[in-house]
Amino acid sequence: MTATLKDVAIRAGVSTSAVSRTFTDGASVSDKMRRKVEKAASELGYSPNFLARSLTTRRTKLIGLVSNNFHNPIFLQVFDLFTRGLQDAGLRPLLVNLSDETDPENSLRMLQQYSVDGVIVASSTLPPYFSKAFRDRKLPIVHTFGRYASSPDVHIVGIDNVESGRMAARELVGRGYKKVAYMGGPLSATSTQDRFKGFEDEMSRHPEIERSHSYADAYTFDAGRTEMLRLLKSNPSEAYFCADDVISIGALSAAKDMGLKVPEDIGFIGLNDMTMAGWENINLTTIHQPITQIISSSVELMVAMLEDPERYPEARLFPCRVVERGTLRPRP
Amino acid sequence: MTATLKDVAIRAGVSTSAVSRTFTDGASVSDKMRRKVEKAASELGYSPNFLARSLTTRRTKLIGLVSNNFHNPIFLQVFDLFTRGLQDAGLRPLLVNLSDETDPENSLRMLQQYSVDGVIVASSTLPPYFSKAFRDRKLPIVHTFGRYASSPDVHIVGIDNVESGRMAARELVGRGYKKVAYMGGPLSATSTQDRFKGFEDEMSRHPEIERSHSYADAYTFDAGRTEMLRLLKSNPSEAYFCADDVISIGALSAAKDMGLKVPEDIGFIGLNDMTMAGWENINLTTIHQPITQIISSSVELMVAMLEDPERYPEARLFPCRVVERGTLRPRP
Repeated sequence: MTATLKDVAIRAGVSTSAVSRTFTDGASVSDKMRRKVEKAASELGYSPNFLARSLTTRRTKLIGLVSNNFHNPIFLQVFDLFTRGLQDAGLRPLLVNLSDETDPENSLRMLQQYSVDGVIVASSTLPPYFSKAFRDRKLPIVHTFGRYASSPDVHIVGIDNVESGRMAARELVGRGYKKVAYMGGPLSATSTQDRFKGFEDEMSRHPEIERSHSYADAYTFDAGRTEMLRLLKSNPSEAYFCADDVISIGALSAAKDMGLKVPEDIGFIGLNDMTMAGWENINLTTIHQPITQIISSSVELMVAMLEDPERYPEARLFPCRVVERGTLRPRP
Repeated sequence: MTATLKDVAIRAGVSTSAVSRTFTDGASVSDKMRRKVEKAASELGYSPNFLARSLTTRRTKLIGLVSNNFHNPIFLQVFDLFTRGLQDAGLRPLLVNLSDETDPENSLRMLQQYSVDGVIVASSTLPPYFSKAFRDRKLPIVHTFGRYASSPDVHIVGIDNVESGRMAARELVGRGYKKVAYMGGPLSATSTQDRFKGFEDEMSRHPEIERSHSYADAYTFDAGRTEMLRLLKSNPSEAYFCADDVISIGALSAAKDMGLKVPEDIGFIGLNDMTMAGWENINLTTIHQPITQIISSSVELMVAMLEDPERYPEARLFPCRVVERGTLRPRP
């Protein structure tokens, strides 16, 4: 049995209103009263909970939708698909913006205050210890865009990022480029690490092709543009696999600014196939990540976990494909 | 006093668990039991409520963040700013996606089930009767990007859309264009209507300039592109005021596809100054809408309303300014 507000009031020998005020920001309560209430609450394991204590079901149908990617345009599609998917399943997204957060404890406290039924982490840049911290508190977790592992700690839904790196490498090889490079996103992002791993793996089979790599600071236009401007000042490659579309678009902009023609002088391939990649002004050749399927599968998995919280962790990986537009030269 | 689950159980002569099951989707309960419970609940005005009944404060700190704009990239900035602003104020956004919704009652039911403390409507395309329906249920409302009215029904935070239309017209007149047009978004959007009103108002002072207008189906790239392709087939204008950046970018793409040079052959001015407008690949001359200020003011107003729900409705309007980039010809 979970302790109730009334239990705390009885144990502390105060009114329920006093207990309530103690746990209400800005409400008036004496220090002495606060100490009494906090002592009783702590002894009973009571924590202020905004949600229906009186419903024995203990289901709130709130799902924490946790992300730190509010500068990458693909996340507008991600939020659209998640909010619709969750709503259609009778669930509600509590959107949590962790852009500036480094401590999972803060997010955990908030998610627990609202008694969310589960948490979807939608990010490849949030450190994996966030998902693990949520899991350790017995919260059902789905990590969308998480890193594939043969024995995952939590449910993972996304793509095989290593394979997507190989796919990009094969594409550059097939088009006869002799000097290629990988431009990653932030080095701490598992997506950036794994795409590089696959790229290197495939390219290592072609020792005649010169290769190099570097990293943009973030999955943003500005970071991609800044890194490409830096690269263009020395001895640039013939073609770049940029770890993400928005970085690619920044790099594309830098190349055009320097008077280079795409794909004649320099080539680019991105990853995601977000809406803007298809805009004729951009026209980016890229690797399509099946966002719609990934998100509907993530929602399905969350629904299944609510039925069976002990469900054995699984990884659901969806195949990617190259979408040819205008930023790589044709195959010879 | 609000009726509790226990009150309903006593009145119906059943266990609290039976009441709980009645209001839990998919839980097992006999028809006879369900009828008893529903009758008692209805007599007592009880409705299943996921939130803390036992807290006398009755504050959930949940704010419904309602929008239908998941295809306009500026809304990623909007969601980022709102989630951070609300979190910093100790509030939590429950994100509600009304992209396909026409009936405010459905949204109301959901927002009330979660006992949200207030609702922020972030849209210029959702019909105004949504805000009014929320207000009629005594929910504190802020309508961000809502239509300015001298006696608003609800709090409005945004820009003076009529004035922004005048501003665009002055810009085109000042650059010596002799044949201009307005390309709106959806005709039902108050922003599209008001921007047109201001544009017409200012242009009517220059009868020597030929003018026309038409509408894109939605605030999307594809809608802007489609409408511009249609216009270019007949007798296009020298310059267009597009009601929004994403429509402008679609129109820009259509013009370039038809081999027109911008700004030599055709000019464009947008509105919003979203991130992509500044991308060098796009480089759109536009009217800057001060999103950061609008959203922080919206959050402040919501916080103030939670203190004083009877607060007299106000309109907070923020000035716009032209941001010159590369899509209008220079002033003569």
